[in-house]
Amino acid sequence: MTERTIAIGALELDGGQILPAVEQRVAIYGDPNCGRVALVLHALTGDHRAAAWWPGIVGEGALLDPREHCIVGINMLGSCYGSTQTRERITIADIVRAQRRALDRLGIERIDLAIGGSMGGMQALQWAHDAPERIGRAIVIGAPDRTGTTAIAFNTIQRDALALDPIAGLGLARKIAMLSYKSDALLSRRHGRRPDRNGRTGFDVEGFLDAQAAKLIERIDAETYRTLTHAMDSFDLSEARWPERTPPLTFVGISSDTLFPAREVRDAAERIACAGIDAGYLEFRSDHGHDAFLAEDAALAQLLTRHMRYNIVPTGATTQ
Amino acid sequence: MTERTIAIGALELDGGQILPAVEQRVAIYGDPNCGRVALVLHALTGDHRAAAWWPGIVGEGALLDPREHCIVGINMLGSCYGSTQTRERITIADIVRAQRRALDRLGIERIDLAIGGSMGGMQALQWAHDAPERIGRAIVIGAPDRTGTTAIAFNTIQRDALALDPIAGLGLARKIAMLSYKSDALLSRRHGRRPDRNGRTGFDVEGFLDAQAAKLIERIDAETYRTLTHAMDSFDLSEARWPERTPPLTFVGISSDTLFPAREVRDAAERIACAGIDAGYLEFRSDHGHDAFLAEDAALAQLLTRHMRYNIVPTGATTQ
Repeated sequence: MTERTIAIGALELDGGQILPAVEQRVAIYGDPNCGRVALVLHALTGDHRAAAWWPGIVGEGALLDPREHCIVGINMLGSCYGSTQTRERITIADIVRAQRRALDRLGIERIDLAIGGSMGGMQALQWAHDAPERIGRAIVIGAPDRTGTTAIAFNTIQRDALALDPIAGLGLARKIAMLSYKSDALLSRRHGRRPDRNGRTGFDVEGFLDAQAAKLIERIDAETYRTLTHAMDSFDLSEARWPERTPPLTFVGISSDTLFPAREVRDAAERIACAGIDAGYLEFRSDHGHDAFLAEDAALAQLLTRHMRYNIVPTGATTQ
Repeated sequence: MTERTIAIGALELDGGQILPAVEQRVAIYGDPNCGRVALVLHALTGDHRAAAWWPGIVGEGALLDPREHCIVGINMLGSCYGSTQTRERITIADIVRAQRRALDRLGIERIDLAIGGSMGGMQALQWAHDAPERIGRAIVIGAPDRTGTTAIAFNTIQRDALALDPIAGLGLARKIAMLSYKSDALLSRRHGRRPDRNGRTGFDVEGFLDAQAAKLIERIDAETYRTLTHAMDSFDLSEARWPERTPPLTFVGISSDTLFPAREVRDAAERIACAGIDAGYLEFRSDHGHDAFLAEDAALAQLLTRHMRYNIVPTGATTQ
């Protein structure tokens, strides 16, 4: 794996502002000249090092194997993992515009597969919309074609927490988010009403949430969190005009997802299919909740392998 | 309606501490000597003035009509609505112990019906458990026989918000709570992705949440909120021994409830029925979410009227 920071110059945002001297961080797994390029887009608090957080999808023996594919993990504009941060209001389209420029600089024109979960799925869909000629297929997991009301509400109150305190508030924001990522069934099974397993006062689920908060404040800052949740809120391709040459789209809904319910993901696939685009829908059965795309990535890879493998080949190649 | 503050003397808590000179606030609708007494228990941020927040259940022409019943609305120990506040950790059993004493002082021995939703339902169930000889029937709405993991987690992070700021944090706690009270379907239908209807920056759902927060901080304080959420967390009658003379129990699950899922309410009814107690289950179909017991109280009253009316009569009277 190689990490690089790519200077992409000034970037015009959807809002009209211009960000000067933008940098875009990427991780490259495998040989860029192997002829099969997959682009892996990350979720709200993820980064470009896709093999680290998505081992069932990226890695030797995984869905995307660096011995067979060149896998590009790409950071979001606005994220503290090496790309340019900003206090401007940016959109998913802005994030994808910066990513397109970075791939231009890398000399990667054609992407056989764009894949991501949650906010990463939004980027994959935006790529298919904005650069259809460059994408062979987009896989959109745990995300519909617009951010729904409940997700906006969850993001809003997380930003309220940041406004109270940039550190403790970020920890609280993470805890709030966890309750939209994990299902009731999972929390009940794992923690029930048991006392904290580490012997502190309170219930076990409180210790779990404390630990999640402590981990996040070590690796993300409030500005990133604020910028990227606003970008997520702005996402709405539900009334977009889909180009005729839009690549095939695969939406994957997570059965227990309460943040981006499977029903909304299926509705998105149907809406786009009605516009004459090849848009399919798969349901990933899991009782984990929204986070299943990360926590049960091996099972997700199995589902995707069964249904998608033949598509992850260079354009024009014969289906295997 | 008459409001009274009743001095009940010193109260021993489950934790062993003694609260001196406890006062208990009540509202009495109708004639205490009419022979039919209903006790109405309130939820986390409610109060004893039941007709104000539950007009479909309490009032002329409602399920409980003060022309036919004496309806006692009773405040929770620890609440800022006129009962003694405390920083001690109290339980639902402590709250009910104080209420029993208050009814003793009022000379009300027999309660034909104890009814409440959410934390009010927990109190109704605790009454049936702790004073079975005094209760003719308990109706437990939107509450199981124990506070589940997700509800504990939601309460925990709300107290985290209070710890950041007693005023703004209380507002944030209310917003967090609203996302456990209102269903995704309701929020989507009411607010969608529309801009704020009052012209402020942001989405309409943000304005809704801001308004809810602003209203709550005018009427509740952080101490009440902290004390009562801890009491809610402590609630667990799932392994209780149910007295043989336990009155009939009616559990009502709300189909779209994510805080206290209908499934858990039904499980509670089944668990208690397995112990040989007359415990039934009704499902209240609503897409509103947990708050349906308040927001759709007229429909709830219809459901309860159809199924329960014959029970709301004095002990020994013939079923009408």
